[in-house]
Amino acid sequence: MFRRLTSRRSMLVGGALAVSAAGIGTALVPGSARSAKQQFAGATRRVTIYAEALPGNLVGYGLAPGQATVPGPTLEMYEGDTLEVTLVNTTTQRLSIHPHGVDYSTDSDGSPLHNSFNNPGETRTYVWRSHEMTAAAGRRFMPGSAGYWHYHDHAMGTDHGTGGVARGLYGALTVRRRGDILPDKQFTVVFNDMQINNKVAPDTPMFEANLGQRVEWTAIGHGSLFHTFHLHAHRWADNRTGMLEGPSDPSLVIDNKDLNPGSSFGFQVLAGEGVGPGAWMYHCHVQSHSDTGMAGLFLVRNADGSMPAGAQEAIDRFHGHVHNPAAHVHGG
Amino acid sequence: MFRRLTSRRSMLVGGALAVSAAGIGTALVPGSARSAKQQFAGATRRVTIYAEALPGNLVGYGLAPGQATVPGPTLEMYEGDTLEVTLVNTTTQRLSIHPHGVDYSTDSDGSPLHNSFNNPGETRTYVWRSHEMTAAAGRRFMPGSAGYWHYHDHAMGTDHGTGGVARGLYGALTVRRRGDILPDKQFTVVFNDMQINNKVAPDTPMFEANLGQRVEWTAIGHGSLFHTFHLHAHRWADNRTGMLEGPSDPSLVIDNKDLNPGSSFGFQVLAGEGVGPGAWMYHCHVQSHSDTGMAGLFLVRNADGSMPAGAQEAIDRFHGHVHNPAAHVHGG
Amino acid sequence: MFRRLTSRRSMLVGGALAVSAAGIGTALVPGSARSAKQQFAGATRRVTIYAEALPGNLVGYGLAPGQATVPGPTLEMYEGDTLEVTLVNTTTQRLSIHPHGVDYSTDSDGSPLHNSFNNPGETRTYVWRSHEMTAAAGRRFMPGSAGYWHYHDHAMGTDHGTGGVARGLYGALTVRRRGDILPDKQFTVVFNDMQINNKVAPDTPMFEANLGQRVEWTAIGHGSLFHTFHLHAHRWADNRTGMLEGPSDPSLVIDNKDLNPGSSFGFQVLAGEGVGPGAWMYHCHVQSHSDTGMAGLFLVRNADGSMPAGAQEAIDRFHGHVHNPAAHVHGG
Repeated sequence: MFRRLTSRRSMLVGGALAVSAAGIGTALVPGSARSAKQQFAGATRRVTIYAEALPGNLVGYGLAPGQATVPGPTLEMYEGDTLEVTLVNTTTQRLSIHPHGVDYSTDSDGSPLHNSFNNPGETRTYVWRSHEMTAAAGRRFMPGSAGYWHYHDHAMGTDHGTGGVARGLYGALTVRRRGDILPDKQFTVVFNDMQINNKVAPDTPMFEANLGQRVEWTAIGHGSLFHTFHLHAHRWADNRTGMLEGPSDPSLVIDNKDLNPGSSFGFQVLAGEGVGPGAWMYHCHVQSHSDTGMAGLFLVRNADGSMPAGAQEAIDRFHGHVHNPAAHVHGG
Repeated sequence: MFRRLTSRRSMLVGGALAVSAAGIGTALVPGSARSAKQQFAGATRRVTIYAEALPGNLVGYGLAPGQATVPGPTLEMYEGDTLEVTLVNTTTQRLSIHPHGVDYSTDSDGSPLHNSFNNPGETRTYVWRSHEMTAAAGRRFMPGSAGYWHYHDHAMGTDHGTGGVARGLYGALTVRRRGDILPDKQFTVVFNDMQINNKVAPDTPMFEANLGQRVEWTAIGHGSLFHTFHLHAHRWADNRTGMLEGPSDPSLVIDNKDLNPGSSFGFQVLAGEGVGPGAWMYHCHVQSHSDTGMAGLFLVRNADGSMPAGAQEAIDRFHGHVHNPAAHVHGG
Repeated sequence: MFRRLTSRRSMLVGGALAVSAAGIGTALVPGSARSAKQQFAGATRRVTIYAEALPGNLVGYGLAPGQATVPGPTLEMYEGDTLEVTLVNTTTQRLSIHPHGVDYSTDSDGSPLHNSFNNPGETRTYVWRSHEMTAAAGRRFMPGSAGYWHYHDHAMGTDHGTGGVARGLYGALTVRRRGDILPDKQFTVVFNDMQINNKVAPDTPMFEANLGQRVEWTAIGHGSLFHTFHLHAHRWADNRTGMLEGPSDPSLVIDNKDLNPGSSFGFQVLAGEGVGPGAWMYHCHVQSHSDTGMAGLFLVRNADGSMPAGAQEAIDRFHGHVHNPAAHVHGG
C-alpha cells in the first residue's frame, strides 16, 4: 500500500524538510514514498515565506517572491522537529503567521498581544517546535504534536487577524509521527465564510488523482460561519490518521464533518477505492452554502491517468450549471 | 444483554435484508434478536422505494405506494452487502436518492452532476455497495462501511437537493459489522432547519420503549442551520457503536452532540438504565430552537409495558404547555 | 507527574466530596494530589446551593448565601457516587438545576415538564447518581458516568431555562473514574452567546497557573450561537481525559474545538509545557466573536510563581487594546 510519489512540483528546504505548494491548493510530499520511520531525528530546518498582495484584494503566503498562493504552501514536520519560519512582509499592513498544534514562545505567537507580528516591509523569524508523546502517569501519555494543523495570520485588520484570514493568509501544517504512512497526493481545502480557498464554484479547485493513489486531505475552517465538509463516495475514520488501528479501534467512520473557524482535520483515502474513477464532488453540506458555490470536484482518473468515461461531461456540467437551481421547490 | 425483538411492523426484502419503516420515524430490526455474526455473507438484495407527495407540501420515501413517511424507511446492510434501490418517482419534479457511507459508481451518485436522478414519473435503480475494513500498512486499516449513515434527495429544487431535503426526502441507513449487537427498537431523529422530522412540538415524534430495552437512535442533520442533539437521562460513547470497547477505550461519553447538515450518528442505550421509566425529553439544545419547538418525548414505559407513574401528566403538559414561556427573564 | 495541590480556596462538603468555587471561575480539588484510586467507594454526599440575583441582571449559584458566582461552583463526583443537591431559590422567579451526564429520576430532572423546579423562595432537593461502566455483550461495555459535564437551570424564562442560562445559572460537573489523575488547578470556561462566563474582554477571567502545574479545563457551551474554543500554545487529546492511553490510542489531538449549546468537554494540560511561561490567549475562534470580546488570558507564571518577562506588558495591552482593530482590512 506504500505508493510511489508522483510529485509534479515540490520544494526542498534545507535539503530535507517537506515544504511544498501548488497553485490550486495541492502540495506534494517530496522524495520517494516510504514509511517515515527513522527518516528524521529532531532536525531544525528553515523556510522563508513571503506575504504578498494578490489580485482581487487577496493576500497570500508563498515560498518565493511572486509565488504567493491561497492557501499558502503546506508545511510539514515530524514530531521532534523545529521549523524556523522567516516571514517577509511585502504588504503595506502589519501581518503575522500563527500556527496551530506546535510549540512556540510568546514572541513567536504571531499575535499583537505579544507584539509578535511584522510591520509593513518587515522581516521576522518565528520558531515552531514539536515533540513526541510523553508519559503522564499510570498508562496515560501527554499527546505529541502530530496532527493535521494549520497556520494563519493573527494581526491584519484586527488583533485576531480577521482581515488577513478573510483575504487568504492561511495554509496547512502537517506534523507526522515517525512511521506514519506518506501519501501520494495532498490537498488543502479551506472553508472560509462562503468560499472554498477564497473561491466559489465553478472556480473552486479541482483536485486530481489516479485510481488507487493514496490521497491526503487537510480541511481547515476560517471566518465567522459554520460549515460541514462532505466528500462523495469516500469515507474516513474520525481519528488522527483517518485509518483504523485495528478491529477494536472504536473511531467513528464518517464522510461529513463539522469544519468551523480555527478547526482543521485530515485523513487519507485511496482515490476511488470501491467506487471507481469519476468526477466526485466535495462540498459544504449546509444547503444554502452548497447552493451558492461551496462545492468543487475531486477528479479520480483511471489508474493510467486517462480521463474516465463521463468525467469530462460532468466537469463541463459543473462549470455550466452548478449554480442554477433546476426546479422550483413547490408543487410535488 | 441480547434482547428479544418486539417488532410490530417490519418488511423483509429479498428474504433477509432488514428494511423497515414506521410512521413515527421508528424502524425495527426483523428477525429474532441475536448477534449478527455469520448471519449474512455479502448478499445482494433489492428494495423498491416510492417517492410521493404528502399533505402539507411534504414529499416522502416509502416501501410501497401510499406508504411514504418523513423520514423514510430505515435501510440496513451488513458490511459486504450490496443493496439495489429501485426508486419510483411519482411526483412532478426530478428527484433522486443519495446515500452516505456506502460505495456507489457515478451513475448511482444521485446528483444532477452525473445525470443521476429520476425525472417526473421515472423509475431508476441505484446500486449501493459496502465493504469490510481492509489492511492499509503496518498496523493500520482502511475503514469499512459500518456506521449510522443516511440517505437523501440530491436533485429536487437545486443540484444539491435543497428542495427535496426541505420537504422530507431523507432517511436512515445503517451498515453493521457482523457481530454487532442488534437493538430491540430503532428511532430516527432528523433535525432539519427548525423542525424535527419536519414537525414542531408538540407534534414531534414520541418514541416509546419498555424499561431495559436496547434502543438504537440514529440522528441526522439537514438544512442550513446548526443544531445540538440532547437526550435527557441517557448518555453514550461518541464512537461507532455508542458503547465502549473496554476500560482503555478513550472515547468521550456524551449526552449532547452537534448535529449539523449532512452529518449523522447513532448509538444504543438501554431505555431508562439507572434512571427508571418516564417521559424523557430529547431536544435541540440551542435555546432558541428548543424554545420554538425542536423538542420531543422518549417515553420509557415500565418493563411490562404499562404507563409509569406521572408520565401521562408529563405528556399532557408537553402537549399543552411546552411552547409557553412561564416567566419573564427580567427581574431576579 | 502527580503534583501537589496548591488550593487557595476550597470547600469540603460532607467531609470528602470535592465541591469548590472561586469567583473567577476556577475551582480546586481539595486534599493532597494523588491518584483517586480507592479514594471513595460509592458514597452519598450532600451539598446546598443558593440561587441568588447578582448585579448586572445576573443570577448565580453559590455554596453559601451571598457567595453566588457565574459560573457556579464546580461539582465533582466519582463514578458510583450519589450527590444530593439541595437548591435554595432566593429569587423571585422559578428556577431549577438540571445536570448532564449523571442519572436522575424524573422528579430530579429539573424541568417544568416534570414539575421539577423551585418556585420563588422554595427549597428543593435533586438527587444525582452515577455508575461505572458495565458489561454489554461480547467485548463491549455500556459507558459509565465519567466525563466533564455541566449543570444549568432548566426552568427560568422558558421551559428550557433560556432565561436562567442567559443570566448565569450554570456550572461544571466533573465525574471521575477511580484512578484518574487529579489536577492542580481547575478552570471553567462558558461560551454563552457572545460572552465568556457572561463577560466580554477585557473583563473575561484571567486564569493563572505556575509553569508545569497540571491544569484541568472544562469548557461549556450555552445560548443560541455556535462557537469554537481555542487555547494558544497548548493542545490535548479529544477523548475522555485529554491524554492518550498509549501509542495506539487513535484520538485526534486538537487545540480548537466546537463548543455549542449544551455541550461540554474537558482536558488536562501541563501549564506552559514545551512553550514556557507567558500570558497565553484563549478565545472563540469565530472571527466576529473574538473581535468583539470572546477572548481571555491564561497566565502561566514562572515555576516559582513570579511574573514572567513580558507578561505584564501583554496583560496591560490586553486591557487597553484587545478590542481595537489595528488596521484596515482593505488595501494590501
